[in-house]
Amino acid sequence: MTTRRNAFVGPSARIETEDGLYSEDEVRLANRNSGVLLESLSKDITPTGLHYLLNHFDVPMLDADTHVLRFSGAFSAPFELSMADILALPTVTRAVTLECAGNGRANVSPRSHSMPWMYEAVGTSHWTGTLLKPLIEKADPSGDVVEFSFLGADFGFDQGVGHHFGRSLTRDQLDDVMLVHSMNGQPLLPQHGAPLRLIVPGWYGMASVKWLTEIEALTQPYEGFQQIEVYRFRDAAGEPGRPVTTLRVKSLMVPPGVPDWGTRQRYLDPGRVELVGRAWSGGGVPIAKVEVELDGAWKTARLEPSGETYAWTKWSCVWEATTGFHVLRCRATDAEGHKQPLEPPWDLAGFGNNAAQKVQVVVGPL
Amino acid sequence: MTTRRNAFVGPSARIETEDGLYSEDEVRLANRNSGVLLESLSKDITPTGLHYLLNHFDVPMLDADTHVLRFSGAFSAPFELSMADILALPTVTRAVTLECAGNGRANVSPRSHSMPWMYEAVGTSHWTGTLLKPLIEKADPSGDVVEFSFLGADFGFDQGVGHHFGRSLTRDQLDDVMLVHSMNGQPLLPQHGAPLRLIVPGWYGMASVKWLTEIEALTQPYEGFQQIEVYRFRDAAGEPGRPVTTLRVKSLMVPPGVPDWGTRQRYLDPGRVELVGRAWSGGGVPIAKVEVELDGAWKTARLEPSGETYAWTKWSCVWEATTGFHVLRCRATDAEGHKQPLEPPWDLAGFGNNAAQKVQVVVGPL
Repeated sequence: MTTRRNAFVGPSARIETEDGLYSEDEVRLANRNSGVLLESLSKDITPTGLHYLLNHFDVPMLDADTHVLRFSGAFSAPFELSMADILALPTVTRAVTLECAGNGRANVSPRSHSMPWMYEAVGTSHWTGTLLKPLIEKADPSGDVVEFSFLGADFGFDQGVGHHFGRSLTRDQLDDVMLVHSMNGQPLLPQHGAPLRLIVPGWYGMASVKWLTEIEALTQPYEGFQQIEVYRFRDAAGEPGRPVTTLRVKSLMVPPGVPDWGTRQRYLDPGRVELVGRAWSGGGVPIAKVEVELDGAWKTARLEPSGETYAWTKWSCVWEATTGFHVLRCRATDAEGHKQPLEPPWDLAGFGNNAAQKVQVVVGPL
Repeated sequence: MTTRRNAFVGPSARIETEDGLYSEDEVRLANRNSGVLLESLSKDITPTGLHYLLNHFDVPMLDADTHVLRFSGAFSAPFELSMADILALPTVTRAVTLECAGNGRANVSPRSHSMPWMYEAVGTSHWTGTLLKPLIEKADPSGDVVEFSFLGADFGFDQGVGHHFGRSLTRDQLDDVMLVHSMNGQPLLPQHGAPLRLIVPGWYGMASVKWLTEIEALTQPYEGFQQIEVYRFRDAAGEPGRPVTTLRVKSLMVPPGVPDWGTRQRYLDPGRVELVGRAWSGGGVPIAKVEVELDGAWKTARLEPSGETYAWTKWSCVWEATTGFHVLRCRATDAEGHKQPLEPPWDLAGFGNNAAQKVQVVVGPL
């Protein structure tokens, strides 16, 4: 059993703060978790060490030599795999963009008091491993299996409930899911799930369970805390909510010019500047269009698709920057017609905020 | 000339907040900069990607193939070095602990509004490069040279002043300073100063200039913004201040037990637990003692020096954890008798806070 209720709930209570001010708990989370540096969006692949990190509990320091992945539950031919077994399986490498479901939470008002991401919880890596589906088939789930749960080695408390981080997928959500042991051509780093993790392409990051220890075949829907309580879209407290699943269409730009240290406000010389950024959507749906708002008009950007189904698309757009204060925005539309909103969509926990990024730029002779 | 005053100072003004609440600017900095995960203090070498990052401006994405280090100023035989030239020089690898001068800033009251580090701005890596001093000697500084300045490629504004990040060292501070191109056996990552940076062992991190482009021999003390304005200990505003230099003695522990997600409060089963952590001091001074406060008594920890002059020392200590709420603390003393204070030393900017870490633990059956 992986869920335990703890008697000591008191210290977990959240401190509520006014909008515009942040609690110590939020800052502690911001110090602990880390985002991408927006200037690295100039690169197709996020440099190692800059991919965002959102870890619910402590990073378990696991030993690859003794690590075992166990298939359990309603399989007729369950087995265990060592890392040597997994490394011997057919290999696939894919560039996949991951984004935290809470990315943009700090821009939703009123704000949910959790990790206060603004824009930076995203990254793209080359992930190497093996496809999950053939292994599931080999373990032979019984006919009444409806879901598979994926359990991590990381354990902690949330709202007084102790649990290993765990998530589930239904049978029809397994296509393209990978069991991953390497990132950007090197063994997984501890903080990214070493020695073994799931990558669920096209989904928000919570689905890609790290430090994977067990895959269980379930004949009833999974009721793990992260599945049922945490990652749900809710309009109001007390609702069961709707599950957070695939990525919403979104785009970001590399802030042009140079920053002020304390505010990150941008400064730029007048003249021609090439704006660049990245856009992505969920479930493998391609990006159809990116528009950039320049001095009140939306200009269509040039797209450079990567050729990878689940990786972000580069975009670029020329701006003739004139002296003064400007607010730039970018918004993407995917091939199914989903378009980024200009204002954050409401969600109680601040999940799925795909509102257009705003970048303030002061243009004048540096 | 590397310093320019900008006309657009307005947006840089800091928002002051009450203690216990944090401004949006501080949270933006916390999202951008990243700290070590305290559980990784179990390891001698900080895993790649977990070493703390404090970058004043944008990370410049430099090309190692064209990068040049230029010796300039009062040298009689100045020269330039390509990365190929530098890689051909004698190689040295050292484990060096770096800590941000602002580490612990958030625990100083009243708080300076900058990057709100709590405990996490520290890390130890294997740095590979070549010693700086032979190159300085080869370039032959004139007899009246008093300092050498080190200039980075990163540019931005701070308090309205535009400048490349730059720092200086005097002639007698050059021993053991390295020109570094590799970290943990791999080429430097962009965010750690690729392709070339300084490592100044035993000093706070600001001395280890990243993205190094120029070394200038100066016959007058360096007056760069980061040297004269930023990294100074000051009791009050308006003072010239005293320069921030070598690391103060400090220690940290791996928080025992498991965390609550939102508060990072720790939970632990009763019983025997081995507490582990790291301790370090400045200027190559060894750690002489680490004490851990357990239930009101200070217990001396066991030390395991690394054998590396400038790397932290592992310590460990057994605790018989009893049911209830505990506050653990650790404090180190170095071989010169410097001992960590129990309360944060006052500094206007929150530099050099080496007060003993406090870890709250709820002990009870999980």
